[in-house]
Amino acid sequence: MDKIKPRTLSGFMELLPAKQQQMERFFQVLRETYALYGFTPLDTPVIEAAEVLLAKGGGETEKQIYRFEKGDSDLALRFDLTVPLAKYVALNYGQLSFPFRRFQIGKVYRGERAQRGRFREFYQADIDIIGDGQLDILNEAEIPAVIYRTFTALGLRRFQIRVNNRKILNGFYAMLGLTEQSGDIMRTVDKLDKIGPDKVKAILTEDLGLSEAQAGEILAFIAIRGSNGEILEKLAAYQGKNELFDRGLEELRAVVSCLGAFGVPEDNFAVDLTIARGLDYYTGTVYETTMLDHPEIGSICSGGRYDNLAEYYTDKKLPGVGISIGVTRLFYVLEEQGLLNPNQPTAPADVLVIPMSEDFVKAVEVATALRDAGIRTQLYTEKKKFKAKIGYADKLGIPYVVFLGEDEIANNVITLKDMASGQQQTLPAADAVALLKEGLARKNAGTVILEK
Amino acid sequence: MDKIKPRTLSGFMELLPAKQQQMERFFQVLRETYALYGFTPLDTPVIEAAEVLLAKGGGETEKQIYRFEKGDSDLALRFDLTVPLAKYVALNYGQLSFPFRRFQIGKVYRGERAQRGRFREFYQADIDIIGDGQLDILNEAEIPAVIYRTFTALGLRRFQIRVNNRKILNGFYAMLGLTEQSGDIMRTVDKLDKIGPDKVKAILTEDLGLSEAQAGEILAFIAIRGSNGEILEKLAAYQGKNELFDRGLEELRAVVSCLGAFGVPEDNFAVDLTIARGLDYYTGTVYETTMLDHPEIGSICSGGRYDNLAEYYTDKKLPGVGISIGVTRLFYVLEEQGLLNPNQPTAPADVLVIPMSEDFVKAVEVATALRDAGIRTQLYTEKKKFKAKIGYADKLGIPYVVFLGEDEIANNVITLKDMASGQQQTLPAADAVALLKEGLARKNAGTVILEK
Repeated sequence: MDKIKPRTLSGFMELLPAKQQQMERFFQVLRETYALYGFTPLDTPVIEAAEVLLAKGGGETEKQIYRFEKGDSDLALRFDLTVPLAKYVALNYGQLSFPFRRFQIGKVYRGERAQRGRFREFYQADIDIIGDGQLDILNEAEIPAVIYRTFTALGLRRFQIRVNNRKILNGFYAMLGLTEQSGDIMRTVDKLDKIGPDKVKAILTEDLGLSEAQAGEILAFIAIRGSNGEILEKLAAYQGKNELFDRGLEELRAVVSCLGAFGVPEDNFAVDLTIARGLDYYTGTVYETTMLDHPEIGSICSGGRYDNLAEYYTDKKLPGVGISIGVTRLFYVLEEQGLLNPNQPTAPADVLVIPMSEDFVKAVEVATALRDAGIRTQLYTEKKKFKAKIGYADKLGIPYVVFLGEDEIANNVITLKDMASGQQQTLPAADAVALLKEGLARKNAGTVILEK
Repeated sequence: MDKIKPRTLSGFMELLPAKQQQMERFFQVLRETYALYGFTPLDTPVIEAAEVLLAKGGGETEKQIYRFEKGDSDLALRFDLTVPLAKYVALNYGQLSFPFRRFQIGKVYRGERAQRGRFREFYQADIDIIGDGQLDILNEAEIPAVIYRTFTALGLRRFQIRVNNRKILNGFYAMLGLTEQSGDIMRTVDKLDKIGPDKVKAILTEDLGLSEAQAGEILAFIAIRGSNGEILEKLAAYQGKNELFDRGLEELRAVVSCLGAFGVPEDNFAVDLTIARGLDYYTGTVYETTMLDHPEIGSICSGGRYDNLAEYYTDKKLPGVGISIGVTRLFYVLEEQGLLNPNQPTAPADVLVIPMSEDFVKAVEVATALRDAGIRTQLYTEKKKFKAKIGYADKLGIPYVVFLGEDEIANNVITLKDMASGQQQTLPAADAVALLKEGLARKNAGTVILEK
C-alpha cells in the first residue's frame, strides 16, 4: 500500500509526551489560579459565523483569519477569545449576573506567515470582568494580583507588572491640544523601549507634525521615573488642568494603593507611563508584564480596561477589564530559554508494576489497590526481557517500579524500587502507599518554571 | 451603529456558566481517571493537512469533514482523535516508548445535518494503548477497569460494559464457511437489539443469501446468554474447530478472568456475543457500554482492539486497543434526563467578600488570605444596594458571604454567612478558613452524575 507521509503543519505546536506533561501543569496552574479570583470557566466554539467574528472588521484580522464555506454557511475560526466573549455576553445577557467574571483557556487561529516561535494555532488564557453599565475601579486594581499569583504559582519570580492609565495619557494629550493625534502619538511612544527617545522625538516632530515644545513635553512626561509613590507625586503636578487626566490619576492611585493588600510586592509592579497598548479600545488601566531577564520576549501578559465589550452586537454598555496570556508562545520561549523545571517527573505513571511470574492476578490486584489510593499506576506485562522492562520505566522516567515474583506473591508483599536512588525494599502493598505518596510529593515539589 | 445579531452556530454546544462548571467536573474526572492507568495526556492540532487526515479515505468521513484552503494548503479539521494519534505515532515513532499509552480529550468536527442532540463540534475523550509489533492481552483486559472506574467516578452506577471478541465471531463464521460475508452478517447481527431476531434472520437469508441452517446456527450462537462463566462454557462447545475461534476464546477468558482483580463487579460487565462494532478494523476484544435505564441512548463508551493503527502512514505494525467517550453528547443526554447532580455548587466562587464601609483595604486583605488558603474568593465592591449585593451571591449560588463593616474592621474579625442555612457568625478571618474548608468539602461532596 502506498503510504502518506505523516506530518504536522508548520506553525502548529505538537509536543512529545514529556513536554506535554509540563504544558498540562501550566494549564492546571492557570485554571486553579484564575478560579481563586472567582472567574468561571467558559468554553465557546472554535468555529463561529464569519459575520459574527468579523463584526468589527479591520485589516490584519481579516487577512489572517481562517475563513471557509460549509454548505451555505460562511464560517471562520476564532482568532482571539475576546470577540467570542463579546458575542456570548450579548447573546446571554439576560441569564448572566454582573459583574460577570470568566476565564477561558482555548486555542485560537491566525494564519500568519510561519516563522520560528510564531504559531498559527495557539492557546490563549484570558480573564475578563464585565460590568453591566458600570464597573468598580477595584476590579482594575485586582488584575495585578491575578497576574502576580499566576506567574508566581508557575514559578516565575523575576517579572514585572507594568501599569499605566489611558485616561492619564489621553488627558495629558488633551492638555497639549493633541487629542486628535493622541492615537498616533501613543503608538510612537509605545516604541520607546525599542527605538529610543531621539527617534521617538523625530517621528513626533517630522512625521506627526508636533512642535518642538509639544514633543519636549511628551518626552519629559514619559521620562517620569521612580518608585510608584514618586511617579504619583510627579503626576500630581499636572493635576487640575484636565478632568480626564484627574480621573485617570485617581484611578491609578486606587490601583497602586491596594497592591499591598492584594499581596503584590513593589518589586513586581511598576507604574510606567510609556505603556499605552496599541489597541484603541482601552480606556483606563492598561497592563503589560515583562520578564526582567528576558525583555526581548516582550509582554507575556497584557490587557486593560475597556468601555464597550460588545458594541458591535448590542446597545448595552458593557465595560470590562481583562488580560490575556499567550500560553503557547510563552511555553515555547520558556523551553527555548531552558526555564522549564527538569526536576519534576514527566512520566505518564508514578509506578510501573512488573509481574515476574506467569500469574498476573496478584499484580493486577496490587495495581488496583495503588490506583484506589490515587497513585498513577501502569501494569507492564509485555513479553520482554527483564532489562527491557526496567529500561521502559527508566526511559519514561517512571519514578517507582514494583516487582511481584513468586516469593512476593507467596509472602503477600511487593518489592518496591526507587528508580532515582536505586533503593529497593520488600513490604506489604498497603505499607507502600504512604511511602509512595511521601516520595511522590517530594519528587513533584516545586514549580513548572525554574529560574536559574 | 448597525448591530450584528450575536448567535452561536447550530450544532455547537455553548453552555451557560453553571452548566459549564458541571462540564469541567466531567473533564477533571476523565483526566484524573485516565491518568491513574498511566495514560499520558496528548494534544494535537485541530487543523491537519487534508491528505493526512483523509489518508484512509472513505465516504461518510469525506462528506462530513470541514475542509478548506488557506493559501496553497489543503486543510481539514480533525473528525476524530484516532487518525491524529496514528499520524503522531508514525511521525514520532523513534521518540516514543511502547506500549505507548495516551489519552486525549479534545474537540472534533463533523459537518453532519444538525438535529437535536447531534453536534458538529464535540469533545471526544479517548484512551489508546499502542504496541510496537505486539501487545499483551492484559491491555485488553484492563480496558473494562478504566471504563468502570471512569463512570463510577462520574457517579454512574447503573451501566454495563459489554464485551465480545472479533476473533470468536470471525472464527465462528469461518466454521460456517461464511468468512466473506462475515462483515455483512455482523452488521446485521449488530441490529439485533433494534430489529429483533426474526428480521435479522430475514435479512440473513433473503438479502445475504444464507441457508436456513446457517442463519439458524448464527441465531443460536448469538442467543447464547447467561453469566460470564456460563457463556464461556457454552462457547467451549465450539472449541477445536477453528484456530482463530480458539484464540479468541482464550483471549476472552483472559479478559474475564482478570475482572475481579481489576475491581470490576460482575454486575457491570457482560460477555455479549451480539456485539461486533461496525468498524472493520477491530480484530480482538470489542467494548460497548450502555446505561441500564437508558438503553435508547446506545453505547456511551465504545472501542476495541485493532492490529494496525497507522498502516496508512508507516510499514511498522502498531497494534492497539482503545476506547472513546463522546463527552458532549453524553453530557447533553445526562442533562436531558435530569441526571446531573443539582446539589453540587456551580458558582464561580466559594466566598463573596462584601465590604460594608468605604475602606476596602481590609476586605482586600481578607480576600487575599482566603485565596492564599485555596478558597475561591470574589470581592464585590460595586456601588449597589445591600439587597443587590446579597442577591448577586444568591443568584450565582455562591455558598458563603463575608461581610466587613466598620465594627468588624475595628475588632479584626469578619462576619461569615452560610447562604444555604442563613446562619451567620462573627469570627477572626483565620478561624473562618477551617470552617469554610469543612463546609465546602461537605457541599462539594458527591459526584457530578446523580442517579435517581
